[in-house]
Amino acid sequence: MEVPYDFELVKIVREISLSKAGKVLLQMPDGLKPYAQTLTVEIESRTGVEVYVSAGSCYGGCDLALTEAEKLKVDLLIHFGHTAFLAQPSKPKVIYVEAKCRLGIGGAVKAALPLLASHRRVGLAASLQHVHKLGGAKKILEAEEKQVEVGNPEGQGVAYPGQILGCNVSAAEALSGKVEAYLHVGGGIFHALGIYLATGKPVVVADPYTGRALEVSEAGEKAKRRLKASLLRLGESSRVGVILGVKPGQFNPQLALKVTRRLRELGKKPLLLSLNEVDELKLENFPEVEAFVSTACPRLGLDDAEKFSRPLVPASKFLETFGG
Amino acid sequence: MEVPYDFELVKIVREISLSKAGKVLLQMPDGLKPYAQTLTVEIESRTGVEVYVSAGSCYGGCDLALTEAEKLKVDLLIHFGHTAFLAQPSKPKVIYVEAKCRLGIGGAVKAALPLLASHRRVGLAASLQHVHKLGGAKKILEAEEKQVEVGNPEGQGVAYPGQILGCNVSAAEALSGKVEAYLHVGGGIFHALGIYLATGKPVVVADPYTGRALEVSEAGEKAKRRLKASLLRLGESSRVGVILGVKPGQFNPQLALKVTRRLRELGKKPLLLSLNEVDELKLENFPEVEAFVSTACPRLGLDDAEKFSRPLVPASKFLETFGG
Repeated sequence: MEVPYDFELVKIVREISLSKAGKVLLQMPDGLKPYAQTLTVEIESRTGVEVYVSAGSCYGGCDLALTEAEKLKVDLLIHFGHTAFLAQPSKPKVIYVEAKCRLGIGGAVKAALPLLASHRRVGLAASLQHVHKLGGAKKILEAEEKQVEVGNPEGQGVAYPGQILGCNVSAAEALSGKVEAYLHVGGGIFHALGIYLATGKPVVVADPYTGRALEVSEAGEKAKRRLKASLLRLGESSRVGVILGVKPGQFNPQLALKVTRRLRELGKKPLLLSLNEVDELKLENFPEVEAFVSTACPRLGLDDAEKFSRPLVPASKFLETFGG
Repeated sequence: MEVPYDFELVKIVREISLSKAGKVLLQMPDGLKPYAQTLTVEIESRTGVEVYVSAGSCYGGCDLALTEAEKLKVDLLIHFGHTAFLAQPSKPKVIYVEAKCRLGIGGAVKAALPLLASHRRVGLAASLQHVHKLGGAKKILEAEEKQVEVGNPEGQGVAYPGQILGCNVSAAEALSGKVEAYLHVGGGIFHALGIYLATGKPVVVADPYTGRALEVSEAGEKAKRRLKASLLRLGESSRVGVILGVKPGQFNPQLALKVTRRLRELGKKPLLLSLNEVDELKLENFPEVEAFVSTACPRLGLDDAEKFSRPLVPASKFLETFGG
């Protein structure tokens, strides 16, 4: 199987040898799981270590498989595709493999040029898999006489200039005063939508997997309208579920209790729901609840309202709108 | 809201008071979750305790929300709808509430009589919610001149004569030499199918929720044919995923390693996948795998093959067929 990612096998083999690991757990986002078996065979044949693969969800560095690692008593958790988000736990040792994408981005960036035609000052951003290629993107834009900016990120889970996460677009926000539009290099529109919602400026996606480009303003405006409607309907609801995510980097009981208190002050009846993976099917089991506030992943309810049959809003937007 | 289950509020209030709990976590199977908010309001108003509800999956007493309880630092985990399956953990204290169903079963049992017409000796079984009504079912059958037997269960997670679980139909198996057919009192066909697959005798379901009855031989034979086909296709597969369930009462790494060794002896390439909730969507992320052996819930792959696009068989059936 041809693998378009650099899984850094040399580093992995070295880390396994250094830590004298007998058992390791591999964890990766869904997009990388198709390569899990190929990777496992490589690691097993080079090191003789016993390899387990986490088949559960993995939405980011916040979503570290610590419970599984503990249960399986592995010596090493090898987490692919994300920058470190949480402090190194006391056990097991966690190593992060960036899984840089080898695909060229030139075609996608060139496809983005017409969509950036009316903007001279452009901010660049990328998800971790493609951030090492932003230099190439910069050159292509500069050849078109653009003034290109790459921002430095702040906060959790980001390590490189221009790198953004679903929940951290600080590298883009840092440029807000200097640029007219953004170019985001990465698959899908999830990351680009995050930039749009945070900055309100046009964001063009250059997608290395399809070689295509698109602009996200329309999707972003739709998300904003839906969020506004959800907040309105939440205001009219009496019984409100407060979702407390239990993934390691999402767990925030203080925020859940703050939201709960505010809901009570507003005369509503809160119900505290703890949940690992939030989806419509799980919420359907609570038909009494009229609306939800989520304290889990901050993107939940921000731009995916269409996935839920009842209003679901992020805690930050609830508190912004209803105080507390 | 009218609640057809006895949630034993008096017992719950007493236990909360006795253990001086400040925080409790309620956990219940999906069928009981619709009553979670009503229940929470009752518990909060009677005790002043802080109530969290686990919104994750809950498939049995094997599926105890210990990780969540630990994370939330609750004093008490109140688990509804199942008999104790695991030893009392050191922390938190776990109490079980049976959630007996208040619905009458007479109509459903009478509807079952025509389906039992050709059998004189009948074994009775029920899931926990209805097991307290087996006396009534016995009377109805005896009035029709049936010889009725109720078996004693053995093993984990069962406490009452006639009580069966998805993974423990010992109360029915104990009668195998004495009866011609079984009557199972409970919702759906899941439990009844378990009896059929273990005993091969006709099983009639009396469903208190619908008031109807049906016989499961056809569904059981279909499941057996599908399992046989899955085992055949597994035999022809090279890359095989071994599913290791991480739910507290399903976690069995020894079995997973035994299956893995046997697969290697057979010249196949195993991939150890750890997973909390096994579903097709999660398995789709591993397109390289041709077939799966599950060491999680022993019912997984036994009668639900149609839920999976590739062969998935329980570890017991794999070992029966392929040795090891």
